[in-house]
Amino acid sequence: MGYWWVNHSQAGAHEVARDYLWSPKREQGGARNQGYDNMALAQPGDIVFSHIDGVVGYVGVVTDLASESSKPAGLGKVGSYWSDDGWLLPVSFQPVRRPVVPKQHLDALVPELPKKYSPIQPNGHGNQKTYLAAISDVLARKLLHLTDADSVSAQPTDATAAAQVQADIEAIQKSTDLSETERQRLSNARIGQGLFRSLVLILHPVCKVTGMADKRLLRASHIKPWRDCTNTERLDGANGIMLSPHIDVLFDQGLISFENDGRMLVREDLAPEVLAQWSIPADLNLAPFHSSQWGYLAWHRQQLARAQA
Amino acid sequence: MGYWWVNHSQAGAHEVARDYLWSPKREQGGARNQGYDNMALAQPGDIVFSHIDGVVGYVGVVTDLASESSKPAGLGKVGSYWSDDGWLLPVSFQPVRRPVVPKQHLDALVPELPKKYSPIQPNGHGNQKTYLAAISDVLARKLLHLTDADSVSAQPTDATAAAQVQADIEAIQKSTDLSETERQRLSNARIGQGLFRSLVLILHPVCKVTGMADKRLLRASHIKPWRDCTNTERLDGANGIMLSPHIDVLFDQGLISFENDGRMLVREDLAPEVLAQWSIPADLNLAPFHSSQWGYLAWHRQQLARAQA
Repeated sequence: MGYWWVNHSQAGAHEVARDYLWSPKREQGGARNQGYDNMALAQPGDIVFSHIDGVVGYVGVVTDLASESSKPAGLGKVGSYWSDDGWLLPVSFQPVRRPVVPKQHLDALVPELPKKYSPIQPNGHGNQKTYLAAISDVLARKLLHLTDADSVSAQPTDATAAAQVQADIEAIQKSTDLSETERQRLSNARIGQGLFRSLVLILHPVCKVTGMADKRLLRASHIKPWRDCTNTERLDGANGIMLSPHIDVLFDQGLISFENDGRMLVREDLAPEVLAQWSIPADLNLAPFHSSQWGYLAWHRQQLARAQA
Repeated sequence: MGYWWVNHSQAGAHEVARDYLWSPKREQGGARNQGYDNMALAQPGDIVFSHIDGVVGYVGVVTDLASESSKPAGLGKVGSYWSDDGWLLPVSFQPVRRPVVPKQHLDALVPELPKKYSPIQPNGHGNQKTYLAAISDVLARKLLHLTDADSVSAQPTDATAAAQVQADIEAIQKSTDLSETERQRLSNARIGQGLFRSLVLILHPVCKVTGMADKRLLRASHIKPWRDCTNTERLDGANGIMLSPHIDVLFDQGLISFENDGRMLVREDLAPEVLAQWSIPADLNLAPFHSSQWGYLAWHRQQLARAQA
C-alpha cells in the first residue's frame, strides 16, 4: 500500500467533495512534473492525505487507477490556465476527526519528509510545485495518528459491501465442516435472502421505521453483523430486521440503533440534516422489539456507543 | 427447475405476505402425506403457484431449501390442531397480473393434472389433502400463460442483485479482450465505485431527489442498466445518477423515472402509499438533466412505459 500527500489548489474543496483528484499531465510549457506523474502511479487502496490551505483535514482511499480526462466542468474557472489534458484519480475522501496544521508539528514531521519532491518545506509551507507527493510509511503513520484517522478505510459503500459479501460467500463455500445444505443456507443469509429472510419477515412484516409493506423494496438486515456472528446467529431470524434501503444503510453503518422498547437512537455525530432530508423524525418511538431480539440489539447499541466515545 | 402448486389453508394470505410456506411433517395420526413430504423436495429456483379460495393469485420462487421448524407464531390460531413439528419453505411470492380461477379453465387444465396427488379434482375443487403438489412443465406453462406471469422471476432483491453482480464481475474477469486495467475499472463500475462513481459525483454531487449530500449514504446508479450497456456506456459518467438508497431501488426497478427537464415519472401500478411512506412527493420537479444524459434517460423512460403497457 502506498501513501500520498496532495497539495490541493483552490479547487481542493471541490475535489474532496466529489471524490476525485485532477491534475494536468504536464506543466504549461510541456515540462514533466513528478507531482503530476504520480497521479498515474497511485494504486487502488493507497491512502491520500489532503492538504488545503495549510490544514490536513481529509484522508482518502484511492478507489481506481487514474484515467485520462479533460478538466472536469465542476472545476470551473479554477485552474483555467491548466492544460485540458490530464489525469482524473478517483479517491474516496472522508473528514479526519482531528484536522492537523503541519506547521504546528514540524518537529515530528520534518525529519520524515522525502528528500526529493517533498510536499512541504521545512518551515511547513506547502510546495505548490508538487501536487501529489509520495510519502513514507513512517510519515503516513504519524499523520494517521495526529489526525486520529488510524482506522481509515474506504467507507462501506456498495463497493466494499459487495466485495465483502463475495469474500464471505467464498469463505462459506470453502468450509469443509459444513454440509452442502448449510453452505447454501449461509450464502443466502449473507445476502439477506432465503431462510433468513423468511424468518425475519415473520417477525417484521413491514419496515419498522417507515411502515413500508412492499416486500420487493425491503431488506433483511442482520442486527449483529455477519463478521461477528456464529453460523447459528447468522441464520437466526431474531438477529434480523426488515428495513427500507435508506434506513438499512443508517442502521448498518451504526448511525442509528434502537432500544428494546422501540425508541430510535441517533449517533451524536450524524448531521441532523441527514434525517431531515429523508423525512425521518429524530424522536421516533416504535413498537417494542420481541425479547428474542434484545441480546442482538444490545450488541448493536454498544457499537454505536463505542463509535461515539 | 420444478413446478409446484400449493393449496393454502386459511393461513394462505399470511404465508404469501411473509414469503414462506409451512406444513407439518406428518398427519395428525402420524401418517405420511405426499403433500407434506414435497416440502422437503422443493429446490431453490422452483416455481410455486399459490391457490387460495379457488383462485391462483400469486406465483413464487423458492429461495432456499425447506428447514425444520415449529409452527411460526404468525400463523396464530390458524391450524392450531396441526403438529408443531414441520417444514418451513422460503418462497418469494408476487401477485400475478391476471388471477385465474381454475374452475373456469377446466378444459385446458384437467388433461394436464397429475394422475396421483393432483392439487385439484376434475371438477376444479382443491384437494385439501394435498398441500404442496408437484405439477408438470406443461401444466405450469399453461398457468404461467393464463396468469400472464410468463416472465416470473425472483424480485430483484438484494439477493438476486448481489448474485447478478457477482456473475457480471466473473464475466468481466474472463474477458480476454480486455486489459487488466479495463477489467478492474469495469468491475468497479459494476458495483458503482471507482472511476464511474467519481464521474457521476461530478455531475450529481447530491441525491437528485432528496438533496442528500453525505456521500457515504449515496449510490452511483446506472441509468441504462449494466446488462444492456456497451463497455463504454458502463463507464460513462453521463449514464449515472447519484441517489439515496431507497430512491435507487425505485429507479433501478423502473418504478420511477425522469423527464429530461427533471420531472419525476411514477409507474401507474406503483401503490401511492409507497411514495407516501417514504415522504417522496409524487409531483417532484427537479433541476433539468445535462443534455449528455438525455439519451440514457430516454432509454429508462421507455422501459417504464413498456412495463405499463
